[in-house]
Amino acid sequence: MRFFSDNAAAAHPKVIEAIVASNRVDTAYDGDEYSQRLDGAFSELFETKVRAFWVSTGTAANCLALAALCPPYRGILCHRHAHIEVDEAGAPEFFSGGARLILLDGPGAKVTPDAVTEACDGIRNDVHQVQPAALSITNATEYGLVYRADEVAALGQLAKQRGLALHMDGARFANALATTGDSPADVTWRAGVQAMSFGFIKNGGLNAEALILFDTDLADEIAVRRKRAGHLVSKGRMLAAQILALLEGGLWLDNARAANAAAQLLANAAPNRLVYPVEANEVFLKVTADESAGLIAQGFDFYDWGPGEIRLVTSWDQRAEDVERLAAALAAL
Amino acid sequence: MRFFSDNAAAAHPKVIEAIVASNRVDTAYDGDEYSQRLDGAFSELFETKVRAFWVSTGTAANCLALAALCPPYRGILCHRHAHIEVDEAGAPEFFSGGARLILLDGPGAKVTPDAVTEACDGIRNDVHQVQPAALSITNATEYGLVYRADEVAALGQLAKQRGLALHMDGARFANALATTGDSPADVTWRAGVQAMSFGFIKNGGLNAEALILFDTDLADEIAVRRKRAGHLVSKGRMLAAQILALLEGGLWLDNARAANAAAQLLANAAPNRLVYPVEANEVFLKVTADESAGLIAQGFDFYDWGPGEIRLVTSWDQRAEDVERLAAALAAL
Amino acid sequence: MRFFSDNAAAAHPKVIEAIVASNRVDTAYDGDEYSQRLDGAFSELFETKVRAFWVSTGTAANCLALAALCPPYRGILCHRHAHIEVDEAGAPEFFSGGARLILLDGPGAKVTPDAVTEACDGIRNDVHQVQPAALSITNATEYGLVYRADEVAALGQLAKQRGLALHMDGARFANALATTGDSPADVTWRAGVQAMSFGFIKNGGLNAEALILFDTDLADEIAVRRKRAGHLVSKGRMLAAQILALLEGGLWLDNARAANAAAQLLANAAPNRLVYPVEANEVFLKVTADESAGLIAQGFDFYDWGPGEIRLVTSWDQRAEDVERLAAALAAL
Amino acid sequence: MRFFSDNAAAAHPKVIEAIVASNRVDTAYDGDEYSQRLDGAFSELFETKVRAFWVSTGTAANCLALAALCPPYRGILCHRHAHIEVDEAGAPEFFSGGARLILLDGPGAKVTPDAVTEACDGIRNDVHQVQPAALSITNATEYGLVYRADEVAALGQLAKQRGLALHMDGARFANALATTGDSPADVTWRAGVQAMSFGFIKNGGLNAEALILFDTDLADEIAVRRKRAGHLVSKGRMLAAQILALLEGGLWLDNARAANAAAQLLANAAPNRLVYPVEANEVFLKVTADESAGLIAQGFDFYDWGPGEIRLVTSWDQRAEDVERLAAALAAL
Repeated sequence: MRFFSDNAAAAHPKVIEAIVASNRVDTAYDGDEYSQRLDGAFSELFETKVRAFWVSTGTAANCLALAALCPPYRGILCHRHAHIEVDEAGAPEFFSGGARLILLDGPGAKVTPDAVTEACDGIRNDVHQVQPAALSITNATEYGLVYRADEVAALGQLAKQRGLALHMDGARFANALATTGDSPADVTWRAGVQAMSFGFIKNGGLNAEALILFDTDLADEIAVRRKRAGHLVSKGRMLAAQILALLEGGLWLDNARAANAAAQLLANAAPNRLVYPVEANEVFLKVTADESAGLIAQGFDFYDWGPGEIRLVTSWDQRAEDVERLAAALAAL
Repeated sequence: MRFFSDNAAAAHPKVIEAIVASNRVDTAYDGDEYSQRLDGAFSELFETKVRAFWVSTGTAANCLALAALCPPYRGILCHRHAHIEVDEAGAPEFFSGGARLILLDGPGAKVTPDAVTEACDGIRNDVHQVQPAALSITNATEYGLVYRADEVAALGQLAKQRGLALHMDGARFANALATTGDSPADVTWRAGVQAMSFGFIKNGGLNAEALILFDTDLADEIAVRRKRAGHLVSKGRMLAAQILALLEGGLWLDNARAANAAAQLLANAAPNRLVYPVEANEVFLKVTADESAGLIAQGFDFYDWGPGEIRLVTSWDQRAEDVERLAAALAAL
Repeated sequence: MRFFSDNAAAAHPKVIEAIVASNRVDTAYDGDEYSQRLDGAFSELFETKVRAFWVSTGTAANCLALAALCPPYRGILCHRHAHIEVDEAGAPEFFSGGARLILLDGPGAKVTPDAVTEACDGIRNDVHQVQPAALSITNATEYGLVYRADEVAALGQLAKQRGLALHMDGARFANALATTGDSPADVTWRAGVQAMSFGFIKNGGLNAEALILFDTDLADEIAVRRKRAGHLVSKGRMLAAQILALLEGGLWLDNARAANAAAQLLANAAPNRLVYPVEANEVFLKVTADESAGLIAQGFDFYDWGPGEIRLVTSWDQRAEDVERLAAALAAL
Repeated sequence: MRFFSDNAAAAHPKVIEAIVASNRVDTAYDGDEYSQRLDGAFSELFETKVRAFWVSTGTAANCLALAALCPPYRGILCHRHAHIEVDEAGAPEFFSGGARLILLDGPGAKVTPDAVTEACDGIRNDVHQVQPAALSITNATEYGLVYRADEVAALGQLAKQRGLALHMDGARFANALATTGDSPADVTWRAGVQAMSFGFIKNGGLNAEALILFDTDLADEIAVRRKRAGHLVSKGRMLAAQILALLEGGLWLDNARAANAAAQLLANAAPNRLVYPVEANEVFLKVTADESAGLIAQGFDFYDWGPGEIRLVTSWDQRAEDVERLAAALAAL
């Protein structure tokens, strides 16, 4: 029973259907009708004119955006546990041409205005030190915490004051919104976000993430950078079709709600063991090595998260009986 | 009736089946059983131990390999009309960190030993001039010519003498082999090729190309570079499954033969108009602007290739009646 | 008797004096009074507000400017024989993060509007091909030809139409102006140049070139890029002092006139052998291998410039008797 | 009275003499006799065959070496307060093509084996996390502490076990050796160092630092990288001459001893205020804001080093009466 990553989930049947349906001769790259509908679909969702680009991975979506937001000779503020720092193999440096990640602390991988202020104030404003040009936040965070619209707005206002672009890593954006009920607009461009990755792959997609530009002036540059990075796939219609299928009828939110509900069920089974509040689809628990071994012995598969801690991640396709069985096992510890 | 690019073809039904079949919970990235079978499948095909990596585009496959073969401060010899020069948006420079493409001339986008020798001899061996470190050839070339095994071997020998790594862009490798009947081994590693991109997308795949390393020492570096470039997709099993489906039973060669046969049919319809011999699935024809307009009026879709010239590309899924109709139209010009 | 490069000349006594005079405890980097005077001195010379930065080499001056004028994912048009292409070891690619040099043809390494137009027209305006963002010209050219103000203005106008920034490599800018008598302003910013390298090292300096920004908005970026490239020397006052010494009283023009006059003397001695008109301090001559050997045997030191051709370069400190002796030897061939 | 930086010191008279003496027509770049003597001079000093390159700044010397020791897709371990992290404007990322600095803690900016071990152990060995390839230490450190030979050897041994190259930033190497009396060989290559920057500019030079390669296989690459970074100055003889003048008769050690002695005098005047032991030419003192203001009012110039702390740096040319006056002022606080 797999609880180690939503990355490992299957693609949703409707996504597969969409791939099959779009599998016909058509214009290559993004000239097809599916790709051409993306801008409109996301503009509607975000209640403003945006530009949307499919790419094959969240790393590409994040780092293409960061490269457009931060010149090679400046820095990107992010949390010490942000995905772009710990799990993208230096892709931010690669895509940006050598920009530096400047690391912030804070519980649950969440960035606070104070942490941003402290970091900026600690940098001498001269040519010897790397000056920050962007701030990147992750919603939901690597530890499953979410930012509410007002929290993002506070960071957005600070970013503006400090001359920083604001980027959101939205690999689990759906899970965040499913929890907060915030409107996509409120938690992004209205709060000052200029560009974001909008994750679909962990949430029922096969290989399509969206890079959303609220600052649409960046679109031409992103289009070239995407090609230059080998991310302009020739049958882009099948990526666009996946995204459209997930957007349609709110399937992306339904999937996220399902994953979140499973996580809540697990959290409720072991409330005293929680390392962080469970606000999305990740559950971090304090368990002893023996307890962990016991769970493994019962067939549960999850990440050991350092001494005395485990990580459980739920996804849209989690089987109810697996979740119930794990909840029971946790309660019985 | 589409003759403008094999890039725009559909994915083969067996490829779609393979995607569906592999769409289940599994290890993320390339830890799954499909991905784990790639090395073996290609090692068998090439009759030697190789390392094989799926990526989503030919540009990624080419440029990851080139980055491993050429340091940032050196150059890559290639034909002036090579895809890496004219159609990858500077991806070789991006992936390599600034290596320079050094351009060779020659008919039909084909590289000759003489052209390589002349280029190398024209570069002063000092720190002021960019020294070449690699040679990249394309088989079949951008103009549909193929390299026979002995031609590659001659280039391979020269490359070795000159201290150059040898790379092959095999976006249409299947079409080349379908014509020559050469063994995959003879035209690659036995001839001195260290790394190649092996194209599947133009040939029935959806979004999976293979990067093949004959120099297996490069594998660890390529694995990191792939991740760092945002090309380690999380559901890699569905890319691997596509490739395996095309390899199985020689479907990749069948598809290429079908495309090549269609091209031959067109070539035979207008033998006096051929700009280059037709050796793969591309047909370049001399036609007047009026003639071209006439073909368009009849519903044929193709690329204008500069004054007085058009490009026709056939693919595995070309409908027989379309090909016959175009052949008739060409014959009737 | 050295005629192989003005690079190998000595520093002018007044330059040495200036170094000695500025050799005292002072603010590090460019906070000293000498460095602080550079903007003013060049603004006066160019009759407009400019920003001026010392660097240690022409390569640094050129490539820092180019990096600010061209993003990593675009290209720089330049002559096939431009120094940035043939003698800077890929520095443009390094500083810019992978921008591509797009090569133009033309006699004497001189760029014409037609060559620029042809190159631009040959590039499809899509994301697959590298789009040019800048044009770089060299005045005087690598073959000793000069651009008059109206020639630069024609290129400047075209560049503007095409959306290209205009850069001038002025390693021998002094030699060009000494010949044309053009005002520094007319041949640069009034003609559309945004940034240039202004050479002093070949013209009496020790290790100080100037990077001049007519587009002063680039100054902050250049300041950071200079530091980041290891070109912010700590005792910058000694570089600034050199430049000021050469500017003072027009020593830079006197030195250039001396070098040019020596070149004219040589040119006049062998007018029928000239490969190019001699407009600066370089003389390219057609001589046979035997003749070349004869000159070498007489103690003259120069570059063999391919079969049947030699290059003679004169500098500010060329001894009159050496020049006369070489002129006589050439006349006697 | 300047105590804010040894960077701001004058060049030594013998250095100026050497520049004047080498100011004559000669081979350009590093073909001259002075440059040609560098390898020999440093090989003698280090009692082994080394390759030595002049460059104009410590940043260039450090980052050229790091680029050769660490591929773009890996990381460089260094102290959080290392110069390459805090004062080189991202030059390590620029020269290396995007390698990441991985930061270590420890008092006095000194790296301990434990800190290295902890950092390495905290990095998962997979393609998602940036794997370290090099360790860089600074001797003397940014806070004026020195590494003894056995300390470097312990780090060298650990580096070898962990597959890390070992780099030394020796901007104040002379000051370190002047204190420890260690032989240059013992504290470098015998202890496992592969490449180092050897500082002269803070110690009497004008604009020449040395990049020393103990791993001489890197020499060809460094030669190209130096040119490509715009650091191959054309009159390199004047850089080589400076270095030779400082090496001759041990002037470099005499200068360092003078600077260190001045620092000791200051340290002894306020032993209870020392933040770190004074082992080179830097003195960090705890003083109140009022005390600091009092010192400034007496004409002493130094860096405020955060709340309650000041930094005093002495150099070879520090006037004895200034040092005595400051010592008295400190004692009188």
